Amino acid sequence: MQSSLPDPLGYISHADGTIALEPSATVFHYAQGLFEGLKAYRDANGKITMFRPDMNMKRMNASAERVALPTFDGDAVIELMKQLIRLDKHWIPDQEGYSLYIRPTMIGTEAALGIHPPNAALLYVICSPVGPYYRHGFKPVALYGTTEYTRASPGGIGAYKLSANYAPGVMVQKEAAKKGYIQNLWLYGPEHHVTEVGTMNAFIVFKQADGVLELVTPPLDGMILPGVTRDSVLALARDHASGKAPIEGMPEGKLVVTERPVTMKEVKKAAEEGRLVEFFGTGTAAVISPVDRIGYEGEDLHIPTGPDGMGVISRPIWKHLVGIQTGKIPHEWSVAVE
Amino acid sequence: MQSSLPDPLGYISHADGTIALEPSATVFHYAQGLFEGLKAYRDANGKITMFRPDMNMKRMNASAERVALPTFDGDAVIELMKQLIRLDKHWIPDQEGYSLYIRPTMIGTEAALGIHPPNAALLYVICSPVGPYYRHGFKPVALYGTTEYTRASPGGIGAYKLSANYAPGVMVQKEAAKKGYIQNLWLYGPEHHVTEVGTMNAFIVFKQADGVLELVTPPLDGMILPGVTRDSVLALARDHASGKAPIEGMPEGKLVVTERPVTMKEVKKAAEEGRLVEFFGTGTAAVISPVDRIGYEGEDLHIPTGPDGMGVISRPIWKHLVGIQTGKIPHEWSVAVE
Repeated sequence: MQSSLPDPLGYISHADGTIALEPSATVFHYAQGLFEGLKAYRDANGKITMFRPDMNMKRMNASAERVALPTFDGDAVIELMKQLIRLDKHWIPDQEGYSLYIRPTMIGTEAALGIHPPNAALLYVICSPVGPYYRHGFKPVALYGTTEYTRASPGGIGAYKLSANYAPGVMVQKEAAKKGYIQNLWLYGPEHHVTEVGTMNAFIVFKQADGVLELVTPPLDGMILPGVTRDSVLALARDHASGKAPIEGMPEGKLVVTERPVTMKEVKKAAEEGRLVEFFGTGTAAVISPVDRIGYEGEDLHIPTGPDGMGVISRPIWKHLVGIQTGKIPHEWSVAVE
Repeated sequence: MQSSLPDPLGYISHADGTIALEPSATVFHYAQGLFEGLKAYRDANGKITMFRPDMNMKRMNASAERVALPTFDGDAVIELMKQLIRLDKHWIPDQEGYSLYIRPTMIGTEAALGIHPPNAALLYVICSPVGPYYRHGFKPVALYGTTEYTRASPGGIGAYKLSANYAPGVMVQKEAAKKGYIQNLWLYGPEHHVTEVGTMNAFIVFKQADGVLELVTPPLDGMILPGVTRDSVLALARDHASGKAPIEGMPEGKLVVTERPVTMKEVKKAAEEGRLVEFFGTGTAAVISPVDRIGYEGEDLHIPTGPDGMGVISRPIWKHLVGIQTGKIPHEWSVAVE
């Protein structure tokens, strides 16, 4: 096929903001696409920051490598994002809970019916103002424990933020909604290991026999997306538990923070024994999303939440993390834009 | 974000043949895309036929349903493809082994950063003249038995022709190439079950202890693409084995045709005992692709092929199948275009 497009770019960027590609562009046929999501915040003094953009660039390069798209200099793209945010800074809302969502994207643009590493790719960044995920306080969600479908498997692509990981989940979420749940909980294997909550990482708080609270998330075993919020929650909780950086409002007593496999058998048993303290998802959009009900094998497990929708561990961690993100609490994770 | 695109289409089809989409089109971010591949042939009398297009439409609708894209009337799209082929019939080569490759494609075109079933989609068909896959006789390929990565898993999307199944394989094929193999053989699970050959279905011929030849392919267990060539090879071999429609040139003696799981242990043992008669891939592009070597756990298994690159079972089946496709052998699978 003859290409009408400027070689070697493979695409035309039109003045109306659209991207024009050949119908045979590899992103259409072979899902050669990936993305990231991060946020820029405007603090009370008007200072604009991004939250841990280096983590997104590192993951984006790992994703690119996994699907044979080109890797790139992450620091250079952070500089470009800063310039873009400065240009678009009037779009960053200054109300509480609002921010600028930033979506770096990469697509394979070569016009080719054969499947191979594309000889052309486009990296672009979308910005969009976003409001608070929960406008009227936290609203805990009900999850359907999915055992009929899997999100990821060993040797697969679950650990990468590839476009290919998302389309298959839409129908699964729709089926969960039909059953009366907001989102689905991805369970893996014959023992129904907890993996992810829709498109978020999963966290659970168990009360151990000795009364100690354990904050658990599944390990990065190749099936779990290495979420930036996941990493941040773990780091903050560990620094609290070790006494290095105590978090205000955390309950008295010892906290243990672990990355380990969790089965639904363990979750169910803890719920029955009144030791299931919390269950929540983490992600860039919602930061923390509390869960109050899990439909599993025909029955509902109930998880306690406070009057504000949060739990004893998620509430202070959320407050601390959002404090860092919005510049109220100074932290090296905040990267100044201007 | 404001969309400059005509609602509800979500795309602009430009006069230069390109498709213009918003940068936030769901196909870019969430792999809401799928495709099919089939061929149209011109026979010695100039008659133009398609091969089993109903199978492609059935599979395309199944793919669409799996990723929450709209389903459609397959017969209506076959009619549209016929009209397109009539328009483009001067592109169908009339040399031996040439055909018109037809690529129906569907993409989600809605501009939306949220993940949900797209409210707009585009179904389009690409045509491209293609030459013989093997210009100078069959050239058997060497496969690397991949145990580090998986193509599909139970509860996943391996049984659907989704764009999301292809990007992750490119790097795996590249790694096989670096090791000196042409393509990779996808092995699944702790027992290294044979699943697919690159982007083709896998067939194996074993000689049983009693001398009977067994043609085996892995069953449609949710991890295997239901290939049209796979189905056609099975149907022809079964009709030969039952005596209903003997295939010219098949070896004397009983043939058994089975869909059952095959492990590499079984393949290796058969190779060692001289009972591994054939190993080949099937797909629309190559029809049949013979394999003469498999790299597995550090050693090479060798598979006999004839001087023409084919084997005793694949040669007559290939000849018969291509005879049907090109109109030399009349068959209900051939659908007249004009």
